[in-house]
Amino acid sequence: MHQADTIVAIGTPPGTGAIALLRLSGPETVRIMHAVAPTMLLTPEPRQATFARLRDAEGPVDEGLITFFPGPHSYTGEDLAEIGVHGSPYIQQRMLEALVAAGARLAQPGEFTQRAFLNKKLDLSQAEAVADLIASGSRAAHKLALQQLRGGYSRQIEDLREQLISLGALVELELDFGEEDVEFADRAELVRLLDNIVAVCDRLIGSFRYGNAVKQGIPVAIVGAPNSGKSTLLNALLQEDRAIVSDIPGTTRDTVEEAITLGGVLFRFIDTAGIRHTEDTVERLGIERSYKRAAEASIVVFLGDASALSEGAFHTQVRMLRKRIGDGPAVIPVMNKVDLVGREVKEMKAVREERGVRRESGVGGTNGADGGGVLHISAKKEQGLEELKARFLAHVHGLQGQEGDIVVTNARHVEALSKAKAALLSAKQGVDQAISGELLATDLREAQYQLGAITGKITPEDLLGSIFSRFCIGK
Amino acid sequence: MHQADTIVAIGTPPGTGAIALLRLSGPETVRIMHAVAPTMLLTPEPRQATFARLRDAEGPVDEGLITFFPGPHSYTGEDLAEIGVHGSPYIQQRMLEALVAAGARLAQPGEFTQRAFLNKKLDLSQAEAVADLIASGSRAAHKLALQQLRGGYSRQIEDLREQLISLGALVELELDFGEEDVEFADRAELVRLLDNIVAVCDRLIGSFRYGNAVKQGIPVAIVGAPNSGKSTLLNALLQEDRAIVSDIPGTTRDTVEEAITLGGVLFRFIDTAGIRHTEDTVERLGIERSYKRAAEASIVVFLGDASALSEGAFHTQVRMLRKRIGDGPAVIPVMNKVDLVGREVKEMKAVREERGVRRESGVGGTNGADGGGVLHISAKKEQGLEELKARFLAHVHGLQGQEGDIVVTNARHVEALSKAKAALLSAKQGVDQAISGELLATDLREAQYQLGAITGKITPEDLLGSIFSRFCIGK
Repeated sequence: MHQADTIVAIGTPPGTGAIALLRLSGPETVRIMHAVAPTMLLTPEPRQATFARLRDAEGPVDEGLITFFPGPHSYTGEDLAEIGVHGSPYIQQRMLEALVAAGARLAQPGEFTQRAFLNKKLDLSQAEAVADLIASGSRAAHKLALQQLRGGYSRQIEDLREQLISLGALVELELDFGEEDVEFADRAELVRLLDNIVAVCDRLIGSFRYGNAVKQGIPVAIVGAPNSGKSTLLNALLQEDRAIVSDIPGTTRDTVEEAITLGGVLFRFIDTAGIRHTEDTVERLGIERSYKRAAEASIVVFLGDASALSEGAFHTQVRMLRKRIGDGPAVIPVMNKVDLVGREVKEMKAVREERGVRRESGVGGTNGADGGGVLHISAKKEQGLEELKARFLAHVHGLQGQEGDIVVTNARHVEALSKAKAALLSAKQGVDQAISGELLATDLREAQYQLGAITGKITPEDLLGSIFSRFCIGK
Repeated sequence: MHQADTIVAIGTPPGTGAIALLRLSGPETVRIMHAVAPTMLLTPEPRQATFARLRDAEGPVDEGLITFFPGPHSYTGEDLAEIGVHGSPYIQQRMLEALVAAGARLAQPGEFTQRAFLNKKLDLSQAEAVADLIASGSRAAHKLALQQLRGGYSRQIEDLREQLISLGALVELELDFGEEDVEFADRAELVRLLDNIVAVCDRLIGSFRYGNAVKQGIPVAIVGAPNSGKSTLLNALLQEDRAIVSDIPGTTRDTVEEAITLGGVLFRFIDTAGIRHTEDTVERLGIERSYKRAAEASIVVFLGDASALSEGAFHTQVRMLRKRIGDGPAVIPVMNKVDLVGREVKEMKAVREERGVRRESGVGGTNGADGGGVLHISAKKEQGLEELKARFLAHVHGLQGQEGDIVVTNARHVEALSKAKAALLSAKQGVDQAISGELLATDLREAQYQLGAITGKITPEDLLGSIFSRFCIGK
């Protein structure tokens, strides 16, 4: 697909640095490059960084390096040039204006990658991985994005789609024979194939719970009575390794208070109000919101004050919490302030084990992190925090499941997979009920379409727009 | 000069973007490059941008472009590599760590340019121009920095220094002959040369007033009685073109309130308290500070309220202001709020001219901007602002003087030029008084040394450190 115009953008982060890069891509690249660097060779050596005096209509602007990448062997698949200048915002802006004056158009966010997609340098899921890669703020998120950029499950999706296309073609052939009631597509094989594809869809959809958590950060709610030490615990956890949260993508950002990375995984801490019995209407609303946020979290740290609360009373509270927040989150029950009851953490553990409270605490839930019973810590003395962090990581490993390699991180892909699955189940039901070939063909086409939308074999225009608009300018 | 270690830094501005560049320079560049990009050719094509899979000990990190610049044909004069990666802070940081793990050392600010200087790719004044170029935030500042980068007055300084060296050598030769009282150096020619060099020094020192103002921004103080409309005027001036002041270098930054660029020149507005007669001690201190700041400004806009003040009273106030702030700044007397006296600006002008107050206002000062008499404006109605801006620019052109091409922007250079001048005057006095050749030789040596320090022919170590530390990392 040929793009008529030549686009330009500053590719490096905004601000002041030693170097900044401007990127130029499109059919007019060579002409525009010469307009700002008249001393360059008319046919620049491909991929060769060349010194150039850069100018605009008013005079010299900078001295820099230009590298020309002739299409189709460039990022975009078109003629592309990278112009390296001194990293002053003034020079960057003036060069940008000079390139626009010479005939380039300012690029939209993601437009370079969109051209790469349109010129078949990347499929759609790989193009999306570029944005994820740039946004990734932790080792785990980075690894998933890089896998997806390198092909990821594109091939697997394409395999499934091709099988569906072959079978669909046979079903459509039956339609051509109309009244004759022939069956080119073996119904038993069709059902086997449908079951197989549904199973793959299920596995991929399931992996999103991990993929999304890794990409957005695992949400952790610290819940407890006022004065149970929520802030102290949060500060103790943040002390060693405070992540920069400003770059974390996603809509939940406004509720993020703080974040850390443990074992390469980002954990986001969600602020909650202290929980207690109260008649105050306003406070009760706040507490309701705490429960709601806890219910949406992946991990809930439920904090009790060991100096004010018996183990038994705490267990009752944990059971009440579980009722309020449902089965979704893992709950880690934590008795804090063990230093105030005059015992060390280790002793507490021994005491607890003697009493046999482990496993009988009634806190068992749906997943891994619940398995370990009550933790005894002192947030103030920083005791027991390592065990708490180990529980966080155990929870993530539980989410990750068996299929560590194939992980969906993209909500759009999950949506397409879910729609494909629905169409496949409908097709299967149709086969069971021996419905007409036409309805079957429609379901198969819908499933093909949805799988194709993941890799971009089938892409409505508006989908492209919404995908590439979340990129940074210059990519 | 050979540097033993290999340095690395992120060269592009910090943050998220499409692309980021890491720079590696030093003898181990090729080995370290291969440590992070094992699939690259062992002898990479010079200056050729090459696709590379980048990794660290833990696994794949990114896919990027590496360009290798073998020394001495590189920015630093050493082997240098630029590694382009996806512009995620995570990837940038991890690649930086990978390069350090492979044996590179994190570069100090300006260390790449320092190596370029040590390897004679740039002289010291050019190296300083690199930092100025990156910091320059206006067309005028950018133009001066680019001129300096391209050689600027380096050649002129070197010419002068070489003349001094030749003459100095003759004087030193006389010393060798000691008692014999010979004169190899023609005293008349020596005086002519000294006069010539002093004149050049004077001109360069003089140009600093313009150069520094352009580099730092021309300081403009808006002074006037409370309620004379200072804020309204400032807002009206800022409305169209508000400059980003965060990148302006220099120590005066903390007093900068706002800035605009007009005709490519940056003007900084200095905040002052309203001026009036008062017995309040605290307020009087504030007013004293206003006068002090006005005295330090390059331009003082003195604002009167046309609706409350006769022209005669205003002229008296302008004369009093001039007494308080001295002859340094240009004063632009401005009558504001002409809209309230029921007349348009044009009419006011006509009225003013009829009355013949122009040129008789007694506000004449030492330079250009004073020349135009009282301006009549309405900041609120945005009338008369263009004429005020024209006065600002006229003032700058007055500063620029005849020698528009050779402008010193660097305080260190002015200091060296001043010391050189003092030594030359002392030498000249010595010739007049026929003092001993030894004292003369000492003065000439001092002048040579000072001129040499500008271009870096003579550079104490500590000077280098202080020059390069004001660079950004990666340059």
